[in-house]
Amino acid sequence: SRLTHIDEAGAARMVDVSAKDVTARTARATGRVLVAPRVIELLRGEGVPKGDALATARIAGIMGAKRTPDLIPLCHPLALSGVKLDLSVTDDAVEIAATVRTTDRTGVEMEALTAVSVAALTVIDMVKAVDKEAVITDVRVEEKTGGKSGDWSRS
Amino acid sequence: SRLTHIDEAGAARMVDVSAKDVTARTARATGRVLVAPRVIELLRGEGVPKGDALATARIAGIMGAKRTPDLIPLCHPLALSGVKLDLSVTDDAVEIAATVRTTDRTGVEMEALTAVSVAALTVIDMVKAVDKEAVITDVRVEEKTGGKSGDWSRS
Amino acid sequence: SRLTHIDEAGAARMVDVSAKDVTARTARATGRVLVAPRVIELLRGEGVPKGDALATARIAGIMGAKRTPDLIPLCHPLALSGVKLDLSVTDDAVEIAATVRTTDRTGVEMEALTAVSVAALTVIDMVKAVDKEAVITDVRVEEKTGGKSGDWSRS
Amino acid sequence: SRLTHIDEAGAARMVDVSAKDVTARTARATGRVLVAPRVIELLRGEGVPKGDALATARIAGIMGAKRTPDLIPLCHPLALSGVKLDLSVTDDAVEIAATVRTTDRTGVEMEALTAVSVAALTVIDMVKAVDKEAVITDVRVEEKTGGKSGDWSRS
Amino acid sequence: SRLTHIDEAGAARMVDVSAKDVTARTARATGRVLVAPRVIELLRGEGVPKGDALATARIAGIMGAKRTPDLIPLCHPLALSGVKLDLSVTDDAVEIAATVRTTDRTGVEMEALTAVSVAALTVIDMVKAVDKEAVITDVRVEEKTGGKSGDWSRS
Amino acid sequence: SRLTHIDEAGAARMVDVSAKDVTARTARATGRVLVAPRVIELLRGEGVPKGDALATARIAGIMGAKRTPDLIPLCHPLALSGVKLDLSVTDDAVEIAATVRTTDRTGVEMEALTAVSVAALTVIDMVKAVDKEAVITDVRVEEKTGGKSGDWSRS
Repeated sequence: SRLTHIDEAGAARMVDVSAKDVTARTARATGRVLVAPRVIELLRGEGVPKGDALATARIAGIMGAKRTPDLIPLCHPLALSGVKLDLSVTDDAVEIAATVRTTDRTGVEMEALTAVSVAALTVIDMVKAVDKEAVITDVRVEEKTGGKSGDWSRS
Repeated sequence: SRLTHIDEAGAARMVDVSAKDVTARTARATGRVLVAPRVIELLRGEGVPKGDALATARIAGIMGAKRTPDLIPLCHPLALSGVKLDLSVTDDAVEIAATVRTTDRTGVEMEALTAVSVAALTVIDMVKAVDKEAVITDVRVEEKTGGKSGDWSRS
Repeated sequence: SRLTHIDEAGAARMVDVSAKDVTARTARATGRVLVAPRVIELLRGEGVPKGDALATARIAGIMGAKRTPDLIPLCHPLALSGVKLDLSVTDDAVEIAATVRTTDRTGVEMEALTAVSVAALTVIDMVKAVDKEAVITDVRVEEKTGGKSGDWSRS
Repeated sequence: SRLTHIDEAGAARMVDVSAKDVTARTARATGRVLVAPRVIELLRGEGVPKGDALATARIAGIMGAKRTPDLIPLCHPLALSGVKLDLSVTDDAVEIAATVRTTDRTGVEMEALTAVSVAALTVIDMVKAVDKEAVITDVRVEEKTGGKSGDWSRS
Repeated sequence: SRLTHIDEAGAARMVDVSAKDVTARTARATGRVLVAPRVIELLRGEGVPKGDALATARIAGIMGAKRTPDLIPLCHPLALSGVKLDLSVTDDAVEIAATVRTTDRTGVEMEALTAVSVAALTVIDMVKAVDKEAVITDVRVEEKTGGKSGDWSRS
Repeated sequence: SRLTHIDEAGAARMVDVSAKDVTARTARATGRVLVAPRVIELLRGEGVPKGDALATARIAGIMGAKRTPDLIPLCHPLALSGVKLDLSVTDDAVEIAATVRTTDRTGVEMEALTAVSVAALTVIDMVKAVDKEAVITDVRVEEKTGGKSGDWSRS
């Protein structure tokens, strides 16, 4: 096996996917922002309006998915056909899940991971005045469908 | 305490920082991409040229720092005066650290975290054909200097 | 009826269009910048070269159409196949019309409206030293063709 | 008087502002999206969750303000120090107001107008499946403070 | 013959390509950065680590190809399916070649030229402290394949 | 001497400029697009309206200057205070000159070179249907003023 993005001489390249089929593909990724108890209260709206906090992260994640080829040097530009972000507040974290769909020549795992990462960064930005120690963790692909390698889900 | 980015009615806003001083500020953030043993071998160049793999992630991280206000909705555009990314390969992970400097009215914690996240996503993009299960973890601010709240480091 | 961009729980999302057909689609939008008589004279080149003024707005509008998915959070990225901007100077306004074409899964109304808006903002930017009171008005879709809902024109 | 963005030969240019003072400046712009009664009900949450609709437009407007120099060809890049978007639903329209602050060499009228325009386009995007006839109107600067020309408000 | 991007009235436009076929297309462009002997030594790693210098230019070129429609006003956004940058150091220059592939309605000559130009600018940026006189020269299309006009190579 | 953008271990970085003075700085760069005689006639408007051709390249160059830190990985984001593009048609070429001004901590040579390159690419895009063999050549810095290293002009 090899790193496909690096050619035999070691040079980075955007891999040629012209021969791959245009098929429906999806990917789902998740991640988590660990925050202090005081942040949980604020995000749940205890004593103050929770307002736009989660909406801001959700929209940032959706927009982040579209910026993936601008950010990740060797990613192909893709025609995204749908992006969904789910954020939920647990007792010690904000849980984030992103589902991305395309009908194109490559998978959308990177778009889903980027959506989760940008949403997570946005959560940190909003809570950092209250909790400097917030941590983004467990950002990973959960499952994908479509494409030549077929369906896959994390075991 | 309150989420400063959300006003008293719950609406998201970019907080007015005009009254803050222009001072030298730094932030350092770290993170880690957990990868399979086969990936560690490839990144160390065992049997194949390791080539541009880490350089690609390093450059993506530096460019990512500059895109922070485009990605994080309520972040202020800042004049970055320096960005440094360090990547190292351990036995089970790629460790990433970013140091960002500015002389401006707000801190650069978000720029450092974004640099780490984009570098981490780029690592995943390059190894995903070999290791679908790679995970980004422990993305967090380690220390900051400058600004009204002064120096801080994670305890 | 419902706002399609908001799911049943109220969360914003980029609607899944994978099931929609790839067809030729067009949209035409118009708008108007109301300006002072002195601006009309300058744009008509009375006494000074009118030079690049309208060309600058035209090009800004074309480039703005391409930036639509970067600006409008829930818009799909689309493969635009043609963009045309028409600007004309009347006795009290700059009239703007944009025609956008695609062969893709969603319509291009938003691209046409964005092209008109960015061209209109560019006109204001160029005249604002002479006329602080310029106003953008009547930005709207005039007609569309293609897609499942078929042709439509404003009554 | 002349169009300052066009030189004596008619060529567009980004005007040299190096000699202007760095001072605190603000601008406030407003605009309106005229919508059908059914849309008003949906945005007020009658019978369905209004959810993220207004938050999405608010965030798009804030992000749009930051993109101004990317969109308007002759605008200077500026260090924005604050952006606030207010949206309210009246009986026949969504009213939008944007207040932008900077401490820099040029005013922020264009940033305020761009914020209003992008928020207005985002409203149209969300309601267009229900109301094809929505119109953006009355986008204009209301007042500005700071800079050599001093304070100004629309009469 | 006419400049296709300018209509009969002289107005710039993005030409309508909806009637063109979606076919596999490639383009190869080359260029050269002329540098001082001391730069050649540094890029060859004589006495110092050459490190990421060429990798940085290579990655900038790949990312630049993806930004082509953002930079060139009348270029269509395209689904790039592969980008490859080759840099080599000769006795007095850095030679750059870019190969770009797509399966779309227009050619990718501009994407290949943009990749070469951005890589060349990045080389200059890295050597400019050592050699202020570096020059970018001979940036040109070498060959293209696909599309209605068929294959072509510079004579 | 060393490549300043590469540290002692060979890693690319954005050099820390916090200790540099904020001073007025300018840079002027030039370049040339060699074109066929038929293109010269078209650009001079012989027999057809020359229309927006040169304006399009001029505006693309101005906007390109603002995108420099997005394109060149190790460039600092800068507050540009003025950009001027001059294009002229000679007997066998389009001559391009860009003058960029800032009041900041680093020079604007890269911004001037990027403005020239993007304007040159835009010229090629507009003439490529008539002249496939156009070549960008002699893109180089002519002079700079300001900063610690002081004024410099090409000998």
